[in-house]
Amino acid sequence: MSFKDTVQRKFEVLQNEICDGLEKLDGKSYFKEDRWKREGGGGGRTRVIQDGDLIEKGGVNFSAVHGSLPESVKNSLEVKVNDFFACGVSIVLHPNSPHVPIIHMNVRYFELGNGNYWFGGGIDLTPHYVDTELARDFHSKLKSTCDRYSSQFYPRFKVWADNYFFNHHRNETRGVGGIFYDKLDDSKSGLTKEELLDFSIDVGQTFVPAYEVQSKNRIFPCTEQERQWQLIRRGRYVEFNLVYDRGTKFGLETSGRVESILMSLPKEASWLYDYKPKSEKERTTLDLLRKEVDWL
Amino acid sequence: MSFKDTVQRKFEVLQNEICDGLEKLDGKSYFKEDRWKREGGGGGRTRVIQDGDLIEKGGVNFSAVHGSLPESVKNSLEVKVNDFFACGVSIVLHPNSPHVPIIHMNVRYFELGNGNYWFGGGIDLTPHYVDTELARDFHSKLKSTCDRYSSQFYPRFKVWADNYFFNHHRNETRGVGGIFYDKLDDSKSGLTKEELLDFSIDVGQTFVPAYEVQSKNRIFPCTEQERQWQLIRRGRYVEFNLVYDRGTKFGLETSGRVESILMSLPKEASWLYDYKPKSEKERTTLDLLRKEVDWL
Repeated sequence: MSFKDTVQRKFEVLQNEICDGLEKLDGKSYFKEDRWKREGGGGGRTRVIQDGDLIEKGGVNFSAVHGSLPESVKNSLEVKVNDFFACGVSIVLHPNSPHVPIIHMNVRYFELGNGNYWFGGGIDLTPHYVDTELARDFHSKLKSTCDRYSSQFYPRFKVWADNYFFNHHRNETRGVGGIFYDKLDDSKSGLTKEELLDFSIDVGQTFVPAYEVQSKNRIFPCTEQERQWQLIRRGRYVEFNLVYDRGTKFGLETSGRVESILMSLPKEASWLYDYKPKSEKERTTLDLLRKEVDWL
Repeated sequence: MSFKDTVQRKFEVLQNEICDGLEKLDGKSYFKEDRWKREGGGGGRTRVIQDGDLIEKGGVNFSAVHGSLPESVKNSLEVKVNDFFACGVSIVLHPNSPHVPIIHMNVRYFELGNGNYWFGGGIDLTPHYVDTELARDFHSKLKSTCDRYSSQFYPRFKVWADNYFFNHHRNETRGVGGIFYDKLDDSKSGLTKEELLDFSIDVGQTFVPAYEVQSKNRIFPCTEQERQWQLIRRGRYVEFNLVYDRGTKFGLETSGRVESILMSLPKEASWLYDYKPKSEKERTTLDLLRKEVDWL
């Protein structure tokens, strides 16, 4: 079995595990699967869950695509080779409750026709209201996972996430961050290809237990004002995904399956002109949406 | 008075006229004005109307900014000069009723430190349900305005709008189009600078009478399904503005006032995974969201 095939198989298993775990956690709704093929080569399994007990709308997507890179993508990746293979698992969950954070995860493997390869990925958390205890739990789980592979991973990837998940035009982070890494190969990590694959799978397996803790406040009631605030924070999430997110751009430019790419957008979102925080909780949250917070 | 000052004064008057006309048309709400200054030079008057009888959320913005261009903007405009002056009036209205279209208008003047200048602008209509009679009325008004200046304007600018107001990833137009033009100077139009300014003002003055006709179906009731469809169409509008709109990109990259730029986003929008049209009216609309429809 080629390494590409191994990655593909392990990522498919990861998608299955995560979907099973999330269905258990949700307790009401189930994922609906759409299998699709990409014209230029490859395809995927899009799995979407809607109107659950915990999750209002969420997707856990697997895709493995190959073919030739459009010029624009070659330029932005700074590569000259045409042929590519890209395989990944990508998740965004928008919960019903404003007391539960939005969460995102992605692990991906990229290989060029000339044999060059890299891994990328990350997990980040976007609470509607920042809870420093929950942020600490999230970051400590990510640090444990990273530390099993390299003591340099968490500190590097935490800063990377701060810089990546950033709404420049708002001068605010998308949430409390997490980890982000890209173009990781043996030369840049000190790990073998196989160990980097293990690391990616391990990041993926951190997802469900981490979100289980994050969703503990799902039982609390929600006022109208809290729902309004949630919809405004979701608006910021839409801004990030459509203006900055590289995965979204890559997907749209390589004629990916639009509905699979944009499953990351919430069922409902809102924009109010020049909204000012209406409560202490809202103000505290805005104060904490900045880089370089040490959540541990 | 320099030409820049003349443009600025006339655009300010245009903003006043349009706001007066829209308040009369709305009959309930009034514009709230925020004056702002830009750190790098200039400023604007943002005027937002919310929760009206006709308009759920809308903005009519005036701005006149100057300073030095960021490198990224110089590259995308293909200019090498640093100093710029940009002045414009920009409108987006999201009505309450799904039976009334979203509408956008923009007229702008751009001048570089070396004396080079151009006008740009456009009006386009985004009905939630396409009504071919109303689309015809809209296009015929725009054609009349254009024809007073050049018989070539409407045919050129109509095609330009089809190509510009296009959601590439969806392979659908944003709405029924209208007119769009950019980098228009004496050499490219056969008109003098002063005549081009007159044309811009005339485009602006076409706005209120055109929208008055478009809003005639405001009195009809709205079902839950029609509201849902409206929110989905608004989602597409958000996609266009954040992914493709040059004015939005220019504004965000030149550190414009974020709340003024993003006033174009609706109070509420929705994304449902892989939504399929649920009625004949929805299907007909999707069929008509394409380029090269002759609405006249």
